[in-house]
Amino acid sequence: MNIGLFGFGVVGHGLYEVLQKTPGLQATIKNICVKDKNKQREIGPENFTYDKNDILNDDSINVVVELIDDADAAYEIVTAALKKGKAVVSANKKMVAEHFAELLQLQREYNVPLLYEAAACASMPIIRNLEEYYDNDLLDSIEGIVNGSTNYILTKTFSENLSYADALKQAQDLGFAESNPILDTGGFDAKYKLQILLAHSFGYIATPDEIFNLGIDNIGELELKYAKEKGLKIKLVAQAFKGADNTISAFVTPKFVTPEDRLYNVDDVFNGVLTKTYFADTHFFVGRGAGAYPTASAVLSDISALSYDYRYEYKKILRQENLSLSNDAELKVLLRHQKDDAEALKLKFNTVEEAYLNNSEGYITGDITLNNLKQLQQQYGTDVSFILINVVKETKSASTAQVAVPA
Amino acid sequence: MNIGLFGFGVVGHGLYEVLQKTPGLQATIKNICVKDKNKQREIGPENFTYDKNDILNDDSINVVVELIDDADAAYEIVTAALKKGKAVVSANKKMVAEHFAELLQLQREYNVPLLYEAAACASMPIIRNLEEYYDNDLLDSIEGIVNGSTNYILTKTFSENLSYADALKQAQDLGFAESNPILDTGGFDAKYKLQILLAHSFGYIATPDEIFNLGIDNIGELELKYAKEKGLKIKLVAQAFKGADNTISAFVTPKFVTPEDRLYNVDDVFNGVLTKTYFADTHFFVGRGAGAYPTASAVLSDISALSYDYRYEYKKILRQENLSLSNDAELKVLLRHQKDDAEALKLKFNTVEEAYLNNSEGYITGDITLNNLKQLQQQYGTDVSFILINVVKETKSASTAQVAVPA
Repeated sequence: MNIGLFGFGVVGHGLYEVLQKTPGLQATIKNICVKDKNKQREIGPENFTYDKNDILNDDSINVVVELIDDADAAYEIVTAALKKGKAVVSANKKMVAEHFAELLQLQREYNVPLLYEAAACASMPIIRNLEEYYDNDLLDSIEGIVNGSTNYILTKTFSENLSYADALKQAQDLGFAESNPILDTGGFDAKYKLQILLAHSFGYIATPDEIFNLGIDNIGELELKYAKEKGLKIKLVAQAFKGADNTISAFVTPKFVTPEDRLYNVDDVFNGVLTKTYFADTHFFVGRGAGAYPTASAVLSDISALSYDYRYEYKKILRQENLSLSNDAELKVLLRHQKDDAEALKLKFNTVEEAYLNNSEGYITGDITLNNLKQLQQQYGTDVSFILINVVKETKSASTAQVAVPA
Repeated sequence: MNIGLFGFGVVGHGLYEVLQKTPGLQATIKNICVKDKNKQREIGPENFTYDKNDILNDDSINVVVELIDDADAAYEIVTAALKKGKAVVSANKKMVAEHFAELLQLQREYNVPLLYEAAACASMPIIRNLEEYYDNDLLDSIEGIVNGSTNYILTKTFSENLSYADALKQAQDLGFAESNPILDTGGFDAKYKLQILLAHSFGYIATPDEIFNLGIDNIGELELKYAKEKGLKIKLVAQAFKGADNTISAFVTPKFVTPEDRLYNVDDVFNGVLTKTYFADTHFFVGRGAGAYPTASAVLSDISALSYDYRYEYKKILRQENLSLSNDAELKVLLRHQKDDAEALKLKFNTVEEAYLNNSEGYITGDITLNNLKQLQQQYGTDVSFILINVVKETKSASTAQVAVPA
């Protein structure tokens, strides 16, 4: 394999190093395209080009690896490379999520693979597992911590009692969060990943706009105090589950997590994903969700997979089960609000369990539909904050009916 | 696919049900071979045969699924089926581990696949992940709880303060442990699984005899008290790791596990496996390690994989890296012993950290080689008990050098 690499940031450089130290893989980076001519780099300028066509028009390059930040530029490169008949590996979750249907179509039309394991949960082989392993099992739900930056911030907030603002600043100082961190903290990055997981788990291609996302940037002292008093942690959780009539619910929200929940111990930049299937019951995967080497490792695994002609089969999408996204799911949440809004907000709940007020603000806990939650969020903006307590739904599960057998 | 099924116990019946409820897979069970003509079964006798040749000689059957207990009979069936050119799915870890090299040879010679995901950790897709995902990453170690029965017993011993004998009896009454439970409690089942994982992770084909296994059947009150006082749990852990000069250490022992260890929260019949690789750092997988449906789910996944011509490539074995098993690893252990043996036993340690004695027995903690541990176990038998505290070795790890990047 002759690789044309786009981008030489921490992940690109990580991949460069990883490839040097990997004995089994016959792959060479032939050319590297970067934007900034004047940036000081770890290897000499003879390795670089500044014109994307030097890679795209080079017929000896059969694999394009795209590791740049700019999702729009990535889209241009990836689509051009696919149209040239080159296999592509990308780590750009925003680009993949926003153009999923078109990228799938291009893969078919030009009969070339596009792999993007690094786009969801960095080093964790979650896409490959969803694509291959749950093909014929009856997947009920998928739930996880899929953003390393926000998990780092939340971990610091809880374990070191930092304020959210201080924790965010620390994450930025350490390079974990972007200078404009809203993609992470607003839950957008998690949403893009959920879009990708949704396609490979349930076979549903959503547009990112369809998926509700609530970030961690509006979490306040009241919710943190509530969590600490009850021995809970708050995690940013992306989830999707099957409902009645071929519907799927999918959303990203902060969630209170109990010590019994497997996600409770997924801290720092680690990601963790729980799947629940009718026969296998729960599976749980944990791995580093950020970092140059972990991300490069997933990219490398995709390159390796190309060497034996692996491609995503998108079997569940092809099965076309007439699924639709629904906002009817009922969620048990804590809603923190301004004092004067209490009575109006209660009316939006199906059931109110607790109501608390102090001089300036208060909270309500109870059951509310995802629809109402979305409406309130639009109407009240940062005057309200929601934390998911749990999903109120009947889960079908085979586990209670299981017959015990020796391992 | 036309399936010939051997065995209709809990897993076989589970598979039968799973296949009925799986929409995507085009596979039919054409014939089922069982041993006992007079046993009452959930489906009518017209579904069964009592002669294995009715399946083996039926050219319309292209997939044999082997789910019987008897490893020797399983070996006869599986080898005969492979020689007939039939693809085979097996859940028999003892059979696979004991005949690994020959089964690999038969797959090549007759150009047919043999899949056995259910043979290690039931529902968890661990073999497939080791085979596919870590191909080109530099795997440093693999460690896990791979036996559901013993984990159930140990969990009861800790959470409900049952004695080992009572917990074992409860497991047997519930059907989690076999009537002759030594395969589970002696660590043999875990060893067979480790043999399989070793082949797919490091590419080394061991014979089960080469792998040291210590079970949980000799754990006494002193060790339990020690663990509880220090807030530890005892888990039966199988592990393998790379050492110097292309050596690998591989063994099964009880191990003290701290709350910070991911394996600490893997309780009941759940299995959990930790991998550590140079670039991806740690990955952690959890799933049910026992149960009719979880095991059937892994079998189903193999059948599904056959439908798109999947087979294990055994890439790491083919790479032939001249690996060898070593017993030179240094382990920090607690050794419980009879009072009078204390001084003689201390001489076998490289370093003694603690020594405790009461009227009848005592313990030593310190560093000892795997070689010495094996010798002492042969010499002293049940008069001594070892619990691993941790492995004393330098682990190569890229994680400390990692550059932080946004997720």
